[in-house]
Amino acid sequence: MSTETSSAAFDRMWTDLEPVGRAGSGGYRRFAWTREDHTLREWFAGECAARGLDLVEDRMGNQWAWWGDPDAAPRQGIAIGSHLDSVPDGGAYDGPLGVVSALAVVDALRAQGRSPGRPLAVVNFVDEEGARFGVACAGSRVITGAMTRERALGLTDADGTSMAEALRAAGRDPEGIGPDPETLRRVGAFVELHVEQGRGLVDLDLPVAVASDIWPHGRWRFDFPGEANHAGTTRLEDRRDAMLGYADLVLTARHVATQQGCVATVGKVAVEPGGVNAIPSHVTGWLDSRGADPEAVRATVAELTARAADFGATVTEESWTPSTAFDTALSDRLRHTLGSATELSVPVLGTGAGHDAGILATAGVPSAMLFVRNPTGVSHSPAEHAERDDCHAGVEALTACVADLVGGAPDAGS
Amino acid sequence: MSTETSSAAFDRMWTDLEPVGRAGSGGYRRFAWTREDHTLREWFAGECAARGLDLVEDRMGNQWAWWGDPDAAPRQGIAIGSHLDSVPDGGAYDGPLGVVSALAVVDALRAQGRSPGRPLAVVNFVDEEGARFGVACAGSRVITGAMTRERALGLTDADGTSMAEALRAAGRDPEGIGPDPETLRRVGAFVELHVEQGRGLVDLDLPVAVASDIWPHGRWRFDFPGEANHAGTTRLEDRRDAMLGYADLVLTARHVATQQGCVATVGKVAVEPGGVNAIPSHVTGWLDSRGADPEAVRATVAELTARAADFGATVTEESWTPSTAFDTALSDRLRHTLGSATELSVPVLGTGAGHDAGILATAGVPSAMLFVRNPTGVSHSPAEHAERDDCHAGVEALTACVADLVGGAPDAGS
Repeated sequence: MSTETSSAAFDRMWTDLEPVGRAGSGGYRRFAWTREDHTLREWFAGECAARGLDLVEDRMGNQWAWWGDPDAAPRQGIAIGSHLDSVPDGGAYDGPLGVVSALAVVDALRAQGRSPGRPLAVVNFVDEEGARFGVACAGSRVITGAMTRERALGLTDADGTSMAEALRAAGRDPEGIGPDPETLRRVGAFVELHVEQGRGLVDLDLPVAVASDIWPHGRWRFDFPGEANHAGTTRLEDRRDAMLGYADLVLTARHVATQQGCVATVGKVAVEPGGVNAIPSHVTGWLDSRGADPEAVRATVAELTARAADFGATVTEESWTPSTAFDTALSDRLRHTLGSATELSVPVLGTGAGHDAGILATAGVPSAMLFVRNPTGVSHSPAEHAERDDCHAGVEALTACVADLVGGAPDAGS
Repeated sequence: MSTETSSAAFDRMWTDLEPVGRAGSGGYRRFAWTREDHTLREWFAGECAARGLDLVEDRMGNQWAWWGDPDAAPRQGIAIGSHLDSVPDGGAYDGPLGVVSALAVVDALRAQGRSPGRPLAVVNFVDEEGARFGVACAGSRVITGAMTRERALGLTDADGTSMAEALRAAGRDPEGIGPDPETLRRVGAFVELHVEQGRGLVDLDLPVAVASDIWPHGRWRFDFPGEANHAGTTRLEDRRDAMLGYADLVLTARHVATQQGCVATVGKVAVEPGGVNAIPSHVTGWLDSRGADPEAVRATVAELTARAADFGATVTEESWTPSTAFDTALSDRLRHTLGSATELSVPVLGTGAGHDAGILATAGVPSAMLFVRNPTGVSHSPAEHAERDDCHAGVEALTACVADLVGGAPDAGS
């Protein structure tokens, strides 16, 4: 009964979200504080209202919808959820799977007639992907103080719009953002369900896993100088072509990361002046590097920085997040609950992807994650996928975990 | 007297143009059928009207301002001029120097009391740089039939706007563009004055040269396929990262061009999806290659094409212009005239830059070019420059050439 109810709710919500921000490619473009984001936030508010949850926004605009009074006692609330924004041409599951599943969990608990012994929140974090302003998990970073207000407000998007301007355009007060200890004090534990971004569960032939840790990861901006000149009339020996240093960075990053046993990616580039017949005067490349071993990542970036210096480049660390181990007691409890609730084994997987759960964990909020099988292993792409049965299994797993965490007896009849 | 008049006119016109489309960098952004272009075209029309010239537009919107009746007899007109558009963050001189000098020549001839024996046109070609739609000399290519109407209308800018849409937005009829033999039949010779895009005249310590030829040159689009995926969670060995092939193209192009003795440049790139944390699923790079020897350019492109195939890339030739020798008789006549008019020697220089004069020459219109010294040698950059004395010397030289070509006796008193 509970599964049927929550599955039907999941399916309806999934159908609601499908057209929002969908591009011609089949991928999604849902960036923070855009029209698409407004639509998604309104949708979230509507779903919460329909469930009688009390929606409050924290000082960064993250949406928390509470069932029960989170201020009755400190650190008693259990929060579940994820984010609704996307990378450019991202998949449908990264983020929304966690939010929709969390809402479906409320339906499942209600269908069980459960009255939670601890307050429960469904949360929608803003700007998790950093697709617009370049820093991932901006919503959780700001409320935990991991990113200062000044830094956040000064970030700019590709059109030169600052986050301060984007907030103002969305009817928000940029001066109001900042650390929000009052919000964090309500949260005793955070569990984020997420589509797996790899093939761990495919290889194991299992639908759901618990996360162990998030690899250390960071972003670095490489600025290569050059001199604009005519592409036809300037002798090769007279050129200062900024693109050459950039190309060297791309190839060297792959080579060094392979040697160091981590990953490195250059997925974004900006060229000035950017004309076919003009020698580039400035090229900016963004490096993303991660790995199980922080020393390997650091060594990779150090070697690339030294090499880029030969091309006159400057390197700026835009973000660095150390290895994040999720709360062991909480994760063990989730595994135990899932092991009891199902006949399947529940593997523990690490991940190279950053998440709001990692930011909260670093800030001292006991946090954990569940992963749902992704048959392609692909993420940040329209090919990202989860079978519907696995989505429902994810809701069922999260429901069992939350029921255990919030306590309160179900109806006798359920 | 004539020099003083035309120099003052040159200086005034130069001051008029300086603010139009100027960017914060000090460079110019004057792209075809934009507001800046409209301003420049209106300015040109005003200058022509002030001189009593009859302004007509051809079937591509190139502006021809006639002094005398060009239809009295075929191929009697002498045309001078250049273009007013720019590359992104281009210099002030590439194009405008030729247009402003041509208008100043009219003033100089008038000051001499000269009544041309042949009709004289000042011309402003549209979209010479191809900065917006990717094909240079679109204005002259379309009227000569070197580019078909269908191809031109289907070209798109970075925002996805087609040339057809841009024309319509500018109040023009896209269906009306095409070859314009009536316009070309009026022109017996075309002389384009241009800032030198190199250091030939600096090295020779001379202000003005006559062009010999335009190197063969072309543009090729390299499309590298990949698979979008998460930059943190995808193992290096599982990736299909389109950026790697692109980076290889950039470095190999420089290497092969050095070996072949030509030039090759990758100055423009587009990345999908373009997120810092997404592996590129598609990278497009544009190669510009030129050289004195067409076989060297062809061999360079062939080697790069073969190599790019290893990365699964497809290569599209967007343009190819063979070596263009300017009209020998016309060029010799200019040199002879200038040698008589000044005590300076007049060198003959080739160039790696394409020009409307080259397109007209290929279409059978006797064409020639004058180059004015550029102390930096730099072009397509805010550093592009010509000393004012050299600009005036250019006007004087072009005046002497045009006076010789159009004939007609000056006033006895001048």
